[in-house]
Amino acid sequence: MTEERLMDKIIDVSLRRGFISPTAEIYGGAGGFYDYGPLGTLMRQKIIDLWRQSFVLDEDKVFEITGSLLLPEPVFQASGHLDSFSDPLVQCDKCKSMFRADELIEQITKQKAEGLTLEALDKLIQDNSINCPSCKGELSKARQFNLMFGTEIGSTGGMKGYLRPETAQNIFINFKRLAGFMRNKLPFGIAQVGHSFRNEISPRNFILRVRQFEQMEIEMFYDPEKENEHPRFDEVAEIEINLVTREMQEKGWEEPLRVTVEGAIVEGLIPNQYLAYYLAMETEMLKAMGIPETEFWFRHMQDHEAPHYSAGNFDLEVNLSLGHMEIIGNALRTDYDLQKHAKASNTSFEIADEGRKIVPHVAEPSMGVDRILYTILEKCYREDDRGWVWFQFPAAIAPLEVAVFPLMKKDGLAELAYDIHDELKDAGYLSFYDVSGKIGKRYARADEIGIPFCVTIDYETKEELTVTIRDRDSMQQIRIPIEDLEVVLGELMDGEAEFSEFEDYLIKS
Amino acid sequence: MTEERLMDKIIDVSLRRGFISPTAEIYGGAGGFYDYGPLGTLMRQKIIDLWRQSFVLDEDKVFEITGSLLLPEPVFQASGHLDSFSDPLVQCDKCKSMFRADELIEQITKQKAEGLTLEALDKLIQDNSINCPSCKGELSKARQFNLMFGTEIGSTGGMKGYLRPETAQNIFINFKRLAGFMRNKLPFGIAQVGHSFRNEISPRNFILRVRQFEQMEIEMFYDPEKENEHPRFDEVAEIEINLVTREMQEKGWEEPLRVTVEGAIVEGLIPNQYLAYYLAMETEMLKAMGIPETEFWFRHMQDHEAPHYSAGNFDLEVNLSLGHMEIIGNALRTDYDLQKHAKASNTSFEIADEGRKIVPHVAEPSMGVDRILYTILEKCYREDDRGWVWFQFPAAIAPLEVAVFPLMKKDGLAELAYDIHDELKDAGYLSFYDVSGKIGKRYARADEIGIPFCVTIDYETKEELTVTIRDRDSMQQIRIPIEDLEVVLGELMDGEAEFSEFEDYLIKS
Repeated sequence: MTEERLMDKIIDVSLRRGFISPTAEIYGGAGGFYDYGPLGTLMRQKIIDLWRQSFVLDEDKVFEITGSLLLPEPVFQASGHLDSFSDPLVQCDKCKSMFRADELIEQITKQKAEGLTLEALDKLIQDNSINCPSCKGELSKARQFNLMFGTEIGSTGGMKGYLRPETAQNIFINFKRLAGFMRNKLPFGIAQVGHSFRNEISPRNFILRVRQFEQMEIEMFYDPEKENEHPRFDEVAEIEINLVTREMQEKGWEEPLRVTVEGAIVEGLIPNQYLAYYLAMETEMLKAMGIPETEFWFRHMQDHEAPHYSAGNFDLEVNLSLGHMEIIGNALRTDYDLQKHAKASNTSFEIADEGRKIVPHVAEPSMGVDRILYTILEKCYREDDRGWVWFQFPAAIAPLEVAVFPLMKKDGLAELAYDIHDELKDAGYLSFYDVSGKIGKRYARADEIGIPFCVTIDYETKEELTVTIRDRDSMQQIRIPIEDLEVVLGELMDGEAEFSEFEDYLIKS
Repeated sequence: MTEERLMDKIIDVSLRRGFISPTAEIYGGAGGFYDYGPLGTLMRQKIIDLWRQSFVLDEDKVFEITGSLLLPEPVFQASGHLDSFSDPLVQCDKCKSMFRADELIEQITKQKAEGLTLEALDKLIQDNSINCPSCKGELSKARQFNLMFGTEIGSTGGMKGYLRPETAQNIFINFKRLAGFMRNKLPFGIAQVGHSFRNEISPRNFILRVRQFEQMEIEMFYDPEKENEHPRFDEVAEIEINLVTREMQEKGWEEPLRVTVEGAIVEGLIPNQYLAYYLAMETEMLKAMGIPETEFWFRHMQDHEAPHYSAGNFDLEVNLSLGHMEIIGNALRTDYDLQKHAKASNTSFEIADEGRKIVPHVAEPSMGVDRILYTILEKCYREDDRGWVWFQFPAAIAPLEVAVFPLMKKDGLAELAYDIHDELKDAGYLSFYDVSGKIGKRYARADEIGIPFCVTIDYETKEELTVTIRDRDSMQQIRIPIEDLEVVLGELMDGEAEFSEFEDYLIKS
């Protein structure tokens, strides 16, 4: 499989089978916007639910909020986004195409240009005689282009507003009320799921660099003097993670370091328990979503890659067909944001604790639903030499969990199959009923969208009250009594049982 | 309780207890935007989950999508929003305040002005000598103000885009792919949950008229020649609804008509089964959310209230303290939107069925999460003459379901209580652990946010392995063995058991 082809294959299945398609496709699309179809939406919901269960509901001091997507200008004046949330832009004088200056230089000269000043970028463009890649026209001088989508709240002369570029700011500006809700006791975490918007100069790579994306974020507020007293750290201390330290990056690395989160703290490789806790939790979550642990690691960002106030940023990077890609960011944002908003709004964000007044520090695990979803699609994609294509989704993430087929429409098989499908739905399974086409074609269609199990109703069902279950991955089938169906499916999906354990029921073909 | 006071009381509890607060409050807010705190968010999620379960997951041919919130201009050119999604605006020449012309006239003259032409509005303002209500300055002539938030996609010279004013358009523009996913078989429904945005001239009444709101919508596509062949109509046929017919509105009405949805179709009061099905489903859903059926009805909109292409619009209206308010709209949008987009994009939206080519009609139940949430808050608000205030939420909608209190912190009671709380969480209950303050104060705090049951751990818990459960509404307590706690709580919450059935376990005070 060549690199490009894998993304193209995934785009192809996504379009054909109701996962993902470009927004406003019938009008030629809008660059960097995608719509999630029925199957893409079911997967998104599962991703969000898995995250919410382990990062919010299972926790004791983490609550979720739902802040506004559109925020007035003073929020971004204070946060710094108005001044500095921008990318360098050059425009072709002739054809008016626009490019991100640093990326264009990197593509052409193969040398790093991210983070350079406008002057340095201009010089590189001149020195390397870089012209417009579309029409060879002259390029303008580089200028900063703010990535926030602006609009006007109210009518003429109203208030400037911006679509949020990250969900985090909603949490910071609500800090006083939220701390009150938590009775002003540290630590506590505030979570949020929702869309953010960045007016990327050149969106690309399908859903990996888009202008609208959905984030799952937590701001975990803690007393910096107690940064190694996380109340639940013991529960994760022994979890092993893959780590790429700064030292490894300097020396060059091939394999990430395998280390328990506790060990990493002891060795000074991770700054504190609050950050380490999330690295362990994310490792477990991604594994449950079908992303093999060999395919991702946490990279300690270099100084120049993280904001100046950061006390340590660790990107979770995955090995995708088109290269390494960050899909989760973990940041120690210190008290930077709270201090900025406290000052700008003249509000006190101090919390009193045994005589001390604390502005808490914050650990932030920030995930993109879209990038996680793409990673799952890529890591679960399978094809064999017969041209059979399928997604090997674990049941926990599969958009549909079971397909129910009558072997034939006639002789009451369709009605019987539909009733079984209906009962599975009532029991909470995402079941899909399919009656059209040959049975082999129905299996192929179900495999292609990653349905783990197919249940077939045939003449023996009527006579002996049995059904067959077919396993997507092994393509083996077992025949079991109807009355055991729900329990057996449940065990197979929860991973309590493996298909191979039902050897006695195997249908030999 | 006077009318204004009830909304004020709800706002007060909402702010203090983490339900809802103004967006960017520390910066003076942004009119018409609200943030949902921890408890407001839990309730929103329950509202959405209840809707999703009955309107999407329990259905067989309804799937949900997640479309972009920001859409390019051609979408709204075709849909008509660019030309006509506007309200009439007048501005004060002196203080520059802006007002919705028709509402201002209605407030001052007490006569209906909605839907009048700009000329007619200007004349009414002149004839009634209406000046600026803030400063008495002269008002400008009325002009149409488009309610969509506009922005620029891409940098200078990019594409105009708008935040969607309704979720519906995402579904229409994706129709071709969605029909393909449903194998071009009618009927099928496409659902969507998400934010929509309207730049209201004068947002007001807390979360009832806002500039950002969340919708739960379905577009149910059907063959207009089979409008009375809804596949599941039998299941709802006998459900009774409250109806206000056009005839009743002409004659004046005091009580809505009580009628089964089947009866209403037979008598020609509801246009077809597809619409009627949703009226029945909505009735059941709102009842489960704690809104008494005596408080809402479906009003058949008058011709001038619905779009010209409508084949019948039925608003679900509730009796709120500040008057009647639409919280759900049901519309038969015919094939209007599909035809508009088919033409503008030069795409065929026809579906073949036994030789006929059909552009389907659509029934649309469209709900606002925010308005439903407010209605629940108002209808569940209780206070008694001791000044005790509580929300009588049904467990299905309560943001937290059970509170666990140790009677004292000492003697191991706190640890024991925490363990019980932890087990309840593991069992899936939204449990809240509270150790601080006198027990009576803890009950009051729990009641105020509508927690249905409080479990108290005391010295008898240690000795006899029993706990008490206190019922929020009756304030009665029972004492039961710890080992029965999960089951008893489950029965009480599902409504399988009433608190009064546990008379034998009642603690006499």
